[in-house]
Amino acid sequence: MYAERAHGMTASAVRSLFAVANRPEVVSLAGGMPNISDLPLDVIGGLVSDLIKDHGTQALQYGSGQGELMIREQICEVMAEEQIHGHPDDVVITHGSQQGLDLLTRIFCDPGDVILAEAPSYVGALGTFAAYQAEVVHVAMDEHGLNPQALRQALLTLRAAGKRVKFLYTIPNFNNPAGLTQPLERRKEILAIADELDLLIVEDNPYGLLTIDGQDPLPAMRSLDDTHVVYLGSFSKTFAPGLRVGWVLAPHGVREKLVLAQESATLAPSVFSQFVVSTYLAHWDWRAQLDTFRAMYRERRDAMLRGLTEHMPPGSTWTHPTGGFFVWLTLPEGLDSQAMLPRAVSARVAYTPGTAFYADGMGSRNIRLSYCFPPPERIIEGTRRLGEVINNERDINETFGLKSFTHTPRIHPGPGPDLR
Amino acid sequence: MYAERAHGMTASAVRSLFAVANRPEVVSLAGGMPNISDLPLDVIGGLVSDLIKDHGTQALQYGSGQGELMIREQICEVMAEEQIHGHPDDVVITHGSQQGLDLLTRIFCDPGDVILAEAPSYVGALGTFAAYQAEVVHVAMDEHGLNPQALRQALLTLRAAGKRVKFLYTIPNFNNPAGLTQPLERRKEILAIADELDLLIVEDNPYGLLTIDGQDPLPAMRSLDDTHVVYLGSFSKTFAPGLRVGWVLAPHGVREKLVLAQESATLAPSVFSQFVVSTYLAHWDWRAQLDTFRAMYRERRDAMLRGLTEHMPPGSTWTHPTGGFFVWLTLPEGLDSQAMLPRAVSARVAYTPGTAFYADGMGSRNIRLSYCFPPPERIIEGTRRLGEVINNERDINETFGLKSFTHTPRIHPGPGPDLR
Repeated sequence: MYAERAHGMTASAVRSLFAVANRPEVVSLAGGMPNISDLPLDVIGGLVSDLIKDHGTQALQYGSGQGELMIREQICEVMAEEQIHGHPDDVVITHGSQQGLDLLTRIFCDPGDVILAEAPSYVGALGTFAAYQAEVVHVAMDEHGLNPQALRQALLTLRAAGKRVKFLYTIPNFNNPAGLTQPLERRKEILAIADELDLLIVEDNPYGLLTIDGQDPLPAMRSLDDTHVVYLGSFSKTFAPGLRVGWVLAPHGVREKLVLAQESATLAPSVFSQFVVSTYLAHWDWRAQLDTFRAMYRERRDAMLRGLTEHMPPGSTWTHPTGGFFVWLTLPEGLDSQAMLPRAVSARVAYTPGTAFYADGMGSRNIRLSYCFPPPERIIEGTRRLGEVINNERDINETFGLKSFTHTPRIHPGPGPDLR
Repeated sequence: MYAERAHGMTASAVRSLFAVANRPEVVSLAGGMPNISDLPLDVIGGLVSDLIKDHGTQALQYGSGQGELMIREQICEVMAEEQIHGHPDDVVITHGSQQGLDLLTRIFCDPGDVILAEAPSYVGALGTFAAYQAEVVHVAMDEHGLNPQALRQALLTLRAAGKRVKFLYTIPNFNNPAGLTQPLERRKEILAIADELDLLIVEDNPYGLLTIDGQDPLPAMRSLDDTHVVYLGSFSKTFAPGLRVGWVLAPHGVREKLVLAQESATLAPSVFSQFVVSTYLAHWDWRAQLDTFRAMYRERRDAMLRGLTEHMPPGSTWTHPTGGFFVWLTLPEGLDSQAMLPRAVSARVAYTPGTAFYADGMGSRNIRLSYCFPPPERIIEGTRRLGEVINNERDINETFGLKSFTHTPRIHPGPGPDLR
């Protein structure tokens, strides 16, 4: 009755667990929701009220499949913060950058086509790739993000085996879930390989402007190469995710296909949401607002790192992000983060198990911890509880040698509401 | 480089023509944009301002992939107007009902699967079905809409040939583009076939509440059968298309797959748009607003029918809709509506050629005329200009016997912004 691609669409077992994790007594370090409580709601309310009263018949009407010109121009200004010189003609508005991923996979991938992706990669991207029956091959990362030698090797091996590799998917800034960033030199090395071996790169950049150590945003890969890079942007982390406004900046031919795909998927993105973002960008100092967000996330990131230093048992390691939302924790040997999750939730702390971020079952010793949403003191309390859970887990393992913990079924990499 | 499905994604030749048709001197009877100038913009502006100021951190945040419970409950009230007793658990919010079509096709159709569709059918649905490489087989209509005997025959023939028929796609009320409505008895006949032959029906109902002759809305097919019918609803024609809020009411198993498909496509529908619709439904008399819209569209429908009676040459026929947006015109024999379109646009009137609404190249003698957007006097002027164009076309044909007119390339059935 259903299509082949729908057979993999099953709700994962962690969902019911996350329903519990959303109770107020649980410290959730699992989600990727931005903390938007610093937004000037009174100002935005006034702006949107004026928008509806003065331009309602336009703002509430159907619009272009590509998106409205005005906001595409403003998006080019936003992208200039990362040294991208884009043209509004090459921007396509999407329903969040998740839809950008969906439409790109739709136009590029037949079943069995290969997508290269960082290991680990954003769970929502893996879910989309799976929905189009594309095969994900992971490429190793080191402390500077995606490893160029591993990329070259993977690409050559796959091509030699007759596989059609459609693109590389990467998050160069504050990668979700690992929190790692490619330095400028690393970006150039990857782009040189893309140029040499004619590889398309999908650069997903939801967090790039959320630098939190006072540094300037790095030049986007797209700012260094406008032929091999398709760039995905989003207002979900820098303004408001509830509006679902993202975009794709793509070479002309790709842009044309994306617009047609958007029309068959949804007719057009929401004009109203676009106008709300547009009036916010035009009438509020969004650069100063970014500084507010940066300071707020810095405090939380610092709390997370302090909490981990205090409470993690020996043998644990973790990344030290300089922006974005996430820390990637590696547990002491022998522990399984997915098996441990029910006990963590009982101890009133939640996280996302590492296996969610791999298409190939890896990541069982890893945990993604997010510091974006809870207040600093809750983050520290969360790490305290987590430390206890890990210590108990080690005691149990040592006492009973319970190896069965490492053989629990893997999470299906679908982008549940708490996995984004 | 691109996926197989992307090869058919090419911009149709009528697009550039429609760009011209959007000039103010052209009377466009081509689009399907609702006239929303009667909306209480001041009231809506105030409501949305309060929404942002009082509930902004929730309204601007990520939400559930299925959509917010509050609006799903209100949608059940809206559906009760057509005698549907739905449960909020079975409602999935979509980015317009176009996305409902996209997600349904995604979960049901592998390449080569068959979808049965009325002849003619909504161009945007045909575009979506083509994007999933599904095969559309048209089923004839008569003056009461989809013909049950033709449906049974088509289904049996296809199954005997080993084809997998996934569902029937139908618009029972004021069909786009033909303006025809299935009476209650007809709905029951179609549902009896669905029951007997185990056929799923996708009931698309954007116009059902826009009855314009004082009649009550008919019971939806879904109100008569909750196992074989998946129902698509939309606020695009009854409130505002720029918000992109539609929904699917589906049996439990289908609903579950739809939510997972939604999450991989977009993570979640826009919480903000849902809250805007929700506050409008809660604080404005939307039933009285529907009456305002009904009176407004009645005046325009009347103008259209009067204009056609006055200005169409002998040999033309057209439908007499009792609601919705569209009249379906059949030209005198020998004329080709697509070939004639450039000359119509030169004469400052635009329409959508009938071929757009068929997957099989039929419809060359037909035209979809929409009366939803221009004011009544412009509608009448549009029919006057169209009458002249048709008369000139007949003269040319009779003088020169230009049969080549009937062999122009067909429009690709993609849902362009002016074809919806």
